[in-house]
Amino acid sequence: MSQTFKKAEIICVGTELLSGRINTYIPLFASGLKEAGFVVEREHSVRDRVKDISETVAGALRRANAIIICGGLGPTFDDLTREGVAKTLKRKLGTSKKQLEILKRKFRKYRFPMPKMNERQAMLIEKASVIANSVGSAPGQLIKLKNPVRLLALLPGPLDEWKPMFENFILPELKKTFPVKTVKKTMVLRVAGMSESAVEEALRPVLEKTSGLDFTILAGMGTVDFFATVNEADAGKCAKKLKQVRAECENLLGNTVYGGHHDSLESVIGKKLSQRHWTLSAAESCTGGLISHRLTEVPGSSAYFMGTVVAYSNIVKEKLLGVRASTLKKYGAVSSRGAVEMARGARKLFKTDCALAVTGIAGPSGGSKEKPVGLVFVAVSAKGMEDAWGKKVFNGPRSRVKARAACMALDLLRRRLDTPAVI
Amino acid sequence: MSQTFKKAEIICVGTELLSGRINTYIPLFASGLKEAGFVVEREHSVRDRVKDISETVAGALRRANAIIICGGLGPTFDDLTREGVAKTLKRKLGTSKKQLEILKRKFRKYRFPMPKMNERQAMLIEKASVIANSVGSAPGQLIKLKNPVRLLALLPGPLDEWKPMFENFILPELKKTFPVKTVKKTMVLRVAGMSESAVEEALRPVLEKTSGLDFTILAGMGTVDFFATVNEADAGKCAKKLKQVRAECENLLGNTVYGGHHDSLESVIGKKLSQRHWTLSAAESCTGGLISHRLTEVPGSSAYFMGTVVAYSNIVKEKLLGVRASTLKKYGAVSSRGAVEMARGARKLFKTDCALAVTGIAGPSGGSKEKPVGLVFVAVSAKGMEDAWGKKVFNGPRSRVKARAACMALDLLRRRLDTPAVI
Repeated sequence: MSQTFKKAEIICVGTELLSGRINTYIPLFASGLKEAGFVVEREHSVRDRVKDISETVAGALRRANAIIICGGLGPTFDDLTREGVAKTLKRKLGTSKKQLEILKRKFRKYRFPMPKMNERQAMLIEKASVIANSVGSAPGQLIKLKNPVRLLALLPGPLDEWKPMFENFILPELKKTFPVKTVKKTMVLRVAGMSESAVEEALRPVLEKTSGLDFTILAGMGTVDFFATVNEADAGKCAKKLKQVRAECENLLGNTVYGGHHDSLESVIGKKLSQRHWTLSAAESCTGGLISHRLTEVPGSSAYFMGTVVAYSNIVKEKLLGVRASTLKKYGAVSSRGAVEMARGARKLFKTDCALAVTGIAGPSGGSKEKPVGLVFVAVSAKGMEDAWGKKVFNGPRSRVKARAACMALDLLRRRLDTPAVI
Repeated sequence: MSQTFKKAEIICVGTELLSGRINTYIPLFASGLKEAGFVVEREHSVRDRVKDISETVAGALRRANAIIICGGLGPTFDDLTREGVAKTLKRKLGTSKKQLEILKRKFRKYRFPMPKMNERQAMLIEKASVIANSVGSAPGQLIKLKNPVRLLALLPGPLDEWKPMFENFILPELKKTFPVKTVKKTMVLRVAGMSESAVEEALRPVLEKTSGLDFTILAGMGTVDFFATVNEADAGKCAKKLKQVRAECENLLGNTVYGGHHDSLESVIGKKLSQRHWTLSAAESCTGGLISHRLTEVPGSSAYFMGTVVAYSNIVKEKLLGVRASTLKKYGAVSSRGAVEMARGARKLFKTDCALAVTGIAGPSGGSKEKPVGLVFVAVSAKGMEDAWGKKVFNGPRSRVKARAACMALDLLRRRLDTPAVI
């Protein structure tokens, strides 16, 4: 099967990208473009200068079918992407009355006077289509060129602004303009409680025997994502092959797999709780609120999540959560018993069906020989089940220990919610 | 003083940079180059293909004085940087007997037979100087071109290999070849409670009157960072000018400035609390633990931070935090009175000197005409002070409302901690 991929280039605009800032956008753009049948051939970061933007866009236009430009659509004098692209295309740049009205309406809605300079955001390149920005002020712009056919998209810099525009507008437009002849599908398995290399080792039998399988393994903070892409002549073959790969991988990874593309540990927990009509509460020590923050990132979580006690001091653990003074004295707050009593205490205090708890030493200070920095205990107390707990020592700085401890606690809860009640 | 900065471009080679991998190298290269008196004008990531590498290097050679190429020096068939650069320069690529001997010695040292394919790593571009690799196998290469003078460096991809080569060899060589006549210094002002465009508007008088001031304004989630760089003939003048710019900017921005380079709202709050020997607690509704998570990211925060009640349900607000039933009935939980009573309740429950509280509607559901999604109230209750509160409506998805509400609450607390006690 011969396959001619369409070519894409990404241009990121912003002087900050060439000094202090790490660019985290490329994998996000790349995975969407890949899904739409494109090969990302080059990425460029340029400063906020018309000449640099213009030259880089001109180069990309000579090579690529799709050019995604991100950033430089803000209101300030150094937001120059509009000017740079207009220059390359030798097209006019004019203020759109309609866009100006939309902008003013946005500012009115939030009872905030629109600064004069925001008017620049209503400037459109001649013949560009507008891509509505449902989050921020700057609209995106899409330009279609002929001989050969090319699409040029201008997107604002902030992630929460460009992501919906890219996914809901640009990608469908790209697929329509450049229809893909073969079918390509990607699946994601999200894994908790295994390292990146352990996942690769476990999956090796499938990866070695399956021809034409394109895969990536990406490690997060306590979780690992496995992406597998298959590419076949028709949708039926593609779906069948992907289904088989998925089944084989899931079989090898067992219950470390917690979900797929749109899942997170907290969203999976939310679904399981809703199915059981259960409520949840938490007691956090070393994670300091991170677990509750993650749980409440899920829309609708207020239906099952009641609340948390962040118990940073022992007195709070004792008075609010009812951890026994004898436990604190004999085992210390950072102990399996401490974690279990915290979980029980939260469950009782918030009157919930289940509760999770974390206690540990996030560092950099506070460690000892018996209880080193990074030592973490997690526990889950749930209706009709025995209490469960886990222990681990994480390395790295404070924020990393917190992030990994939060994953570990959420993963323990997820696994418990798969367990039938026994008592 | 006229200033001609030398220009640098960075080229990263590796197909993985255009799919799943985040490139964390740019800030590291950029800070070294900046320190050596260069402006990084562009960054490019290209795939492992001779044509793409060669074209990109050719473009950079037309514009920049220093070109740093990272990656593609490995032993495998898709490590093609040597070939790409040789093609651009129309120079021969040959195996160096000396380098081959060094390679073989390295492998012998680790008692590991050298695979045949590693011989490729002994290939040098005609007239290139070798940069020894003290960690891995691939040597770096440095090429000096004339008319105009340019330096081209080929470095291996792994961080622990290129970093010592870049710092100990390339940077000194760049400084020697392009001696810096001026001194450059950057300062950062971090601002809360103002938009990106409002910051620019406020600073315009300084920005317009100060010649040779290089600046960037970057918006975060509820905060804005202002970077200013000055460039003078000697260190004394540079420090003096930067001091003046800082004073003028601080004067214009007033108490919206919360700190400098290494500060965050939570670290600044930590310092202020420590100075007062005060303790802190929190009551979070719509932010769901995010504020506590941020407060506990600060090492040593356990000295002043006692704990939080994440009160997602009204019953928790009433029973644990003591919000009055009449308040909930008459004004609702999302109200200034609700926020103030939550803050008072947390202060009492945790027996702390001050407490902050947030209540709001994070969305996407739960809004009404009077209380739209995004409506947030924050409050601070503190020893010897009147209660303070604030109200705002944020737009965007749930996570953005949470992030902005957290900033707003932390900023209110910061400002209160600057206020002398009055009662």
